[in-house]
Amino acid sequence: MSKEITSRSQDYAQWYNDLVLKGDLADYSAVRGCMVIKPYGFALWEKMRDQLDRMFKDTGHVNAYFPLFIPKSFLSKEAAHVEGFAKECAVVTHYRLKNDPNGGGVIVDPEAKLDEELIVRPTSETIIWNTYKTWIQSYRDLPLLVNQWANVVRWEMRTRLFLRTAEFLWQEGHTAHATAEEAIAETIQMLNVYADFAEQYMAVPVIKGVKTESERFAGAVDTYCIEALMQDGKALQSGTSHFLGQNFAKAFDVKFSDKENKLEYVWATSWGVSTRLIGALIMAHSDDEGLILPPRIAPLQVVIVPIYKGDEQKAQLDEKASSIANDLKKARVIVKYDNNDNNRPGWKFAEYEKKGVPVRIAIGLRDLQNNVVEVARRDTREKKSYSMDGLTEKIKDLLEDIQQNMFNKAKTYRDAHISNANTWDEFVRLLEEKGGFVSAHWDGTKETEAAIKEKTKATIRCIPLHNPQETGKCILTGNPSKERVLFAQAY
Amino acid sequence: MSKEITSRSQDYAQWYNDLVLKGDLADYSAVRGCMVIKPYGFALWEKMRDQLDRMFKDTGHVNAYFPLFIPKSFLSKEAAHVEGFAKECAVVTHYRLKNDPNGGGVIVDPEAKLDEELIVRPTSETIIWNTYKTWIQSYRDLPLLVNQWANVVRWEMRTRLFLRTAEFLWQEGHTAHATAEEAIAETIQMLNVYADFAEQYMAVPVIKGVKTESERFAGAVDTYCIEALMQDGKALQSGTSHFLGQNFAKAFDVKFSDKENKLEYVWATSWGVSTRLIGALIMAHSDDEGLILPPRIAPLQVVIVPIYKGDEQKAQLDEKASSIANDLKKARVIVKYDNNDNNRPGWKFAEYEKKGVPVRIAIGLRDLQNNVVEVARRDTREKKSYSMDGLTEKIKDLLEDIQQNMFNKAKTYRDAHISNANTWDEFVRLLEEKGGFVSAHWDGTKETEAAIKEKTKATIRCIPLHNPQETGKCILTGNPSKERVLFAQAY
Repeated sequence: MSKEITSRSQDYAQWYNDLVLKGDLADYSAVRGCMVIKPYGFALWEKMRDQLDRMFKDTGHVNAYFPLFIPKSFLSKEAAHVEGFAKECAVVTHYRLKNDPNGGGVIVDPEAKLDEELIVRPTSETIIWNTYKTWIQSYRDLPLLVNQWANVVRWEMRTRLFLRTAEFLWQEGHTAHATAEEAIAETIQMLNVYADFAEQYMAVPVIKGVKTESERFAGAVDTYCIEALMQDGKALQSGTSHFLGQNFAKAFDVKFSDKENKLEYVWATSWGVSTRLIGALIMAHSDDEGLILPPRIAPLQVVIVPIYKGDEQKAQLDEKASSIANDLKKARVIVKYDNNDNNRPGWKFAEYEKKGVPVRIAIGLRDLQNNVVEVARRDTREKKSYSMDGLTEKIKDLLEDIQQNMFNKAKTYRDAHISNANTWDEFVRLLEEKGGFVSAHWDGTKETEAAIKEKTKATIRCIPLHNPQETGKCILTGNPSKERVLFAQAY
Repeated sequence: MSKEITSRSQDYAQWYNDLVLKGDLADYSAVRGCMVIKPYGFALWEKMRDQLDRMFKDTGHVNAYFPLFIPKSFLSKEAAHVEGFAKECAVVTHYRLKNDPNGGGVIVDPEAKLDEELIVRPTSETIIWNTYKTWIQSYRDLPLLVNQWANVVRWEMRTRLFLRTAEFLWQEGHTAHATAEEAIAETIQMLNVYADFAEQYMAVPVIKGVKTESERFAGAVDTYCIEALMQDGKALQSGTSHFLGQNFAKAFDVKFSDKENKLEYVWATSWGVSTRLIGALIMAHSDDEGLILPPRIAPLQVVIVPIYKGDEQKAQLDEKASSIANDLKKARVIVKYDNNDNNRPGWKFAEYEKKGVPVRIAIGLRDLQNNVVEVARRDTREKKSYSMDGLTEKIKDLLEDIQQNMFNKAKTYRDAHISNANTWDEFVRLLEEKGGFVSAHWDGTKETEAAIKEKTKATIRCIPLHNPQETGKCILTGNPSKERVLFAQAY
């Protein structure tokens, strides 16, 4: 076990922090609640971002960029929205500093007070719908399928690297449609894009569902979500897709003339995923040795480590190893040949394990003579000798196998942690002893939802899509229920 | 001439704004000085960003992400830096809004005042060097070659779309080195990357040079720049690369132990280009019909427009045109087949001209019979009939030809607008009547530089690299000068 990394059993929260910090993904910064995303972590985000961006473009979306600042009055225009976001935002009140006449560095210049304060965007519905007002006149301008990659700020009181930071990076799609049906179809389509991305690229199985009213996005008619399960049995909301109805169109007076030349309010969706996904990725797969990254989004897929003594041996290995690396590169595998003299092979092994590199190839002089290499896969930590003949193809197959295996393992764990509870005692015991998702009947009221949260810390993660219609009695109140919902403690 | 676009001769500034707005690149926003980058403009920025990013990575750089906010006290740590940036910055003073007890929407919660104000980054040297302090201990940690793509805010009083906006998008490279020589080499390397990008991708010829002391970046030892020439004879600074010496290392106490185990301050560079480049691109090439975009960064390289009457004719053209489009796509040409019924061919021609699409292919029924298409190039507006045989290759060659022709044209114009002035009268007359760069002797003092600016609005754009050493007398004071420098009025 890595000495640097706290084990999960010892302290799960510390294990997570160790992985982020010692896996070189991110660092704390001097600004409360804001993190620095380090080069290795950012390369991971780039891989995720680029794949999502391709999927957005394949479904007809284009990127744009809207201002960082939102006039304070805009927030108030949608009643639920302001309730949800006003409580935690960074407010710009001045536009200049000046030298302190008393010599204490610089101070805010009281003369440079803004007439109207600006909010650093916590989400961009308001500024975007204010802009759409000028872009949309006719049904010919619809649908408008726009996405933005941006930084946003929510002044969270308790922050955790990637999972909950004051500033984070995300994408926010904002689409405009002529009909409710079309907007709902878009909402579901993007939910499916998120689920496909999570499962096929992050190797994280997710449950698709719809949120209850109290968990809904502030300003939405319906919030759809994907929910993943972490190794400590807690759920993590990994992406949301909102059907906004005509709420923002009404707040910003955005109407279009339909084919009959009649003025109608526009229908809207918004959907987003953020750097929080990296938190999900870490906690779904990693072990006590460090990160385990799925090959399809790993910044580095294969590392080659030579085992040698002295320059002459090194030169012999360099030639062969470089040729292996080149063959892999030609096959579009991301590979690094690490023949750095400063570190010993054992140190390198531990380092790349900690960083979650999916495949390690070790090569020594005897291997060279026998025309083999030692291949270690990060997910199972299994080591095998591979013939160098056809090595590139075998490594490519292995990467696919790791990707699939990681998903299967996470899915087996997740599936084993969806339990039905039919009594309150069973419900509490499952949450306490086993964790994971607990499927139970609920009477459909906010009050019961709040009472259950109060008693167990569990929230309704979602009402799963295509939920079997099964009547029953609420786990807490015994009142009638028309379907089960999924409860869990959550991040 | 396009009715929508003001001609250059009529009103150059309005011509520029028309191109930005009607070419669908950007829009004004509700926030003073901030713009909305529209999908077409953002696609252009993505093409530029992705190419620059490849060039940065090819020269060994990695991306990372640092906080949006900078504690106020950080700015004060480097004396020149705070002088340069404190005057124009957005200041966050509070972290919460609350409902107005008098019912007037939301107000800033006075209880939620920050202990120390946060500045929305105008540039990130301070927060980054504060972080580097923990990343750099030994010479083994160097060089550190990091870049960041980010939004920054400078509270400009007079703003213009792309050229000068309160918020803009940019990249900022921040590197750390063990020696001054290495840092200077990095500074020059990145200047060359910028120049190569401007010339080979944007088709904009640039002059590489070094800034005078008064035009230097706040906190730099030396600022290198690339300067481009616009069609109105004004210069536009298009990228800067700074050798920062040990200024920020000293301000943030960043030392490393060298091979002899001696503690030394680290040497630094920073370098950046921004969405301002789009302003340069527009003004270097476009004409009174609209934008002219160079093929290598055009979001759309080829548009195919069918000329038909009725559905039957359309169906006939659709088949052939789609096959042309598919062939081009396979050859990695970005092509759109626009068979939208809502607009007539003449409207489409004007629209794609306005948007600067490099090549337009028109195809009608007679063309189909004759196995030809009509090809129009945007740069010269020349139209020619092309046989459909081998069309893909011919279009690819044409795109390369357009790219080269645009650069040559811009370079011919630029070269014709570098003039030598040997007397004050000549200097003033050249600036007034001809514009462009005026190469003249200067006595090397700030005072003279300021006096010349006061009298002529011209500033010293740069001291060109590899400037011939030619002694002479200052154009204004007659004092001795050891070389000519380049003056121009500038954006």
